[in-house]
Amino acid sequence: MTSLNNDTLIKALLKQPVTRTPVWMMRQAGRYLPEYRKVRGQAGSFLNLCTNPELACEVTLQPLERFAFDAAILFSDILTIPHAMGLGLYFSEGEGPKFERPVRSAADIAKLPIPDPEQELRYVMDAVRLIRKSLKNRVPLIGFSGSPWTLATYMVEGGSSKSFARVKGLLYEQPALMHEMLDKLAQSVSAYLNAQIAAGAQTVMLFDTWGGMLSSEDYLEFSLRYARRVREQLHTVSDGQRVPTVLFTKGGGQWLEAMADSGYDALGLDWQTDIGLARARVGERVALQGNLDPVALYASPEVIRGKVQAVLEKFGAGSGHVFNLGHGILPDIEPSHVAAMVDAVHELSPVWHR
Amino acid sequence: MTSLNNDTLIKALLKQPVTRTPVWMMRQAGRYLPEYRKVRGQAGSFLNLCTNPELACEVTLQPLERFAFDAAILFSDILTIPHAMGLGLYFSEGEGPKFERPVRSAADIAKLPIPDPEQELRYVMDAVRLIRKSLKNRVPLIGFSGSPWTLATYMVEGGSSKSFARVKGLLYEQPALMHEMLDKLAQSVSAYLNAQIAAGAQTVMLFDTWGGMLSSEDYLEFSLRYARRVREQLHTVSDGQRVPTVLFTKGGGQWLEAMADSGYDALGLDWQTDIGLARARVGERVALQGNLDPVALYASPEVIRGKVQAVLEKFGAGSGHVFNLGHGILPDIEPSHVAAMVDAVHELSPVWHR
Repeated sequence: MTSLNNDTLIKALLKQPVTRTPVWMMRQAGRYLPEYRKVRGQAGSFLNLCTNPELACEVTLQPLERFAFDAAILFSDILTIPHAMGLGLYFSEGEGPKFERPVRSAADIAKLPIPDPEQELRYVMDAVRLIRKSLKNRVPLIGFSGSPWTLATYMVEGGSSKSFARVKGLLYEQPALMHEMLDKLAQSVSAYLNAQIAAGAQTVMLFDTWGGMLSSEDYLEFSLRYARRVREQLHTVSDGQRVPTVLFTKGGGQWLEAMADSGYDALGLDWQTDIGLARARVGERVALQGNLDPVALYASPEVIRGKVQAVLEKFGAGSGHVFNLGHGILPDIEPSHVAAMVDAVHELSPVWHR
Repeated sequence: MTSLNNDTLIKALLKQPVTRTPVWMMRQAGRYLPEYRKVRGQAGSFLNLCTNPELACEVTLQPLERFAFDAAILFSDILTIPHAMGLGLYFSEGEGPKFERPVRSAADIAKLPIPDPEQELRYVMDAVRLIRKSLKNRVPLIGFSGSPWTLATYMVEGGSSKSFARVKGLLYEQPALMHEMLDKLAQSVSAYLNAQIAAGAQTVMLFDTWGGMLSSEDYLEFSLRYARRVREQLHTVSDGQRVPTVLFTKGGGQWLEAMADSGYDALGLDWQTDIGLARARVGERVALQGNLDPVALYASPEVIRGKVQAVLEKFGAGSGHVFNLGHGILPDIEPSHVAAMVDAVHELSPVWHR
């Protein structure tokens, strides 16, 4: 059993008392940092960076040297699972992730393997182990995965999409096939997250980036159902400690009640959702993580401080809030503006925890 | 005082009894129709098509020849107002609308004129008059405008945007300037819609395409506030008839209660919103328009019929529903699939109006 020097994140996710609101940032290890761009350049490609445990560890730790974040998050890609399934992930400049062999037929789905995380995804587990060792219990390490539905969108579309016509076409025309695929993905995601937990991740987050593109009924049937199934399979005690779980559906603000009933300890909130109203709707069941508009970080440090204050005020008094952006940081944000946000959370939040 | 042969849309928007649910479709005059593409080709450019009343009238009427829609909607662009303000609208292939002279400074905002609809936007009013005449009271004509906030996003960004960094930057750093701009836009939009009503539009709709990109508090202050101001200025009786008003914020499902208090007769719903839950939240105050996922029209006619049934069932019994997509039709939908949707609404809806 290890004890963290800073366990504020874990406590807040479990709604235990804290002295101030913890803060971290989606994509905190990323392109807005010159030191990240340097390592990314050395790696040669984004995929090389993800698959090299030493480099992944290095960029994971970079933001902690600059900012007083209360957590590290594993540097990786959300599409490692489909890559391990043999779809051939690659990144084309300016177009985002693509797959060489997208999933289009019943035969494609039938032959999808459930990857063994310590085999095909060993590079991720090695990164987790290395990061945990390097962190020396300074702050907790967050593991993560894309949600079954979000992974399915990329796998069927063959990359990013605007309308999601192909994957929704499969869902409408052949729902049983879609369920078969999502079932395999839920098994793969649970195994992957459990392996991350075994390797040292102290909390895990499921990113459902594209759940918000579904209709309400399709979200419940094809996204949330499998997020719940993942949750049911997770080992939430490791090394004698509770491993809190977080579910984030971008654009999911209308479904928070259902999400709060899916077994996760906390919900991520995008910036369109009013965190005060969200707490009133689901507050006693789950903690909340979010939800500053990522674009607010373009503003001046004074304006950023005011926006941080507004989020803290809306959440109000008591534990159960992890400060974060409502989505990943944008790549051209000035690092000093991130410092303004982190400092504001640390300075302005203690009053809400007396 | 004119009497419509088919006034189902007007009645449903006013929540008066109807015998079946009316249906029309956002972007029903558009690229999915070969006859539209032909006229668009003749016009030479999209802007030529919008500014030529005869051609605009022709494409407005085209979908009514194919489908039993219960309304015509003026064919125009949402950016006619900024174009009339002198910003120089143009369309670059594959990139959408752009402005030659975006609004970036206090001086730019100070010199923005309030266009006189019968002068600088006369081509729109001429199209409205011509369409009304050509319609011969067959179905009502819907007029529309972009919302002040949505117009402002294009004007400041200079075109479409993903992050809306510039316009949100203005909002964060110089809120007074942003309000000055939105105030001018609200005046311009009200004058524009009132002129459309005077020219013959029988109901008007405000398209707030990008309100959903704002945080909750910014939406209320910078988008809904000006939608309400537009509504307060509208002449809602014309030619002895009530002119119902509709507000549509894409991604606005979390704010329906506030939207329902803004004076509009009806709210448009995107496809992510559950129309049954929406009705329960705001039902007695406003009618609802929507909300089939536009991507559902790629599916087979049988599947489309089932999806139409699901929307009708969710809304339930009684008037106050206008069937529509949750956003504009996609350009590569098969026209026969639109027929499947329209026919399903006509065949399956009477049971809810007994």
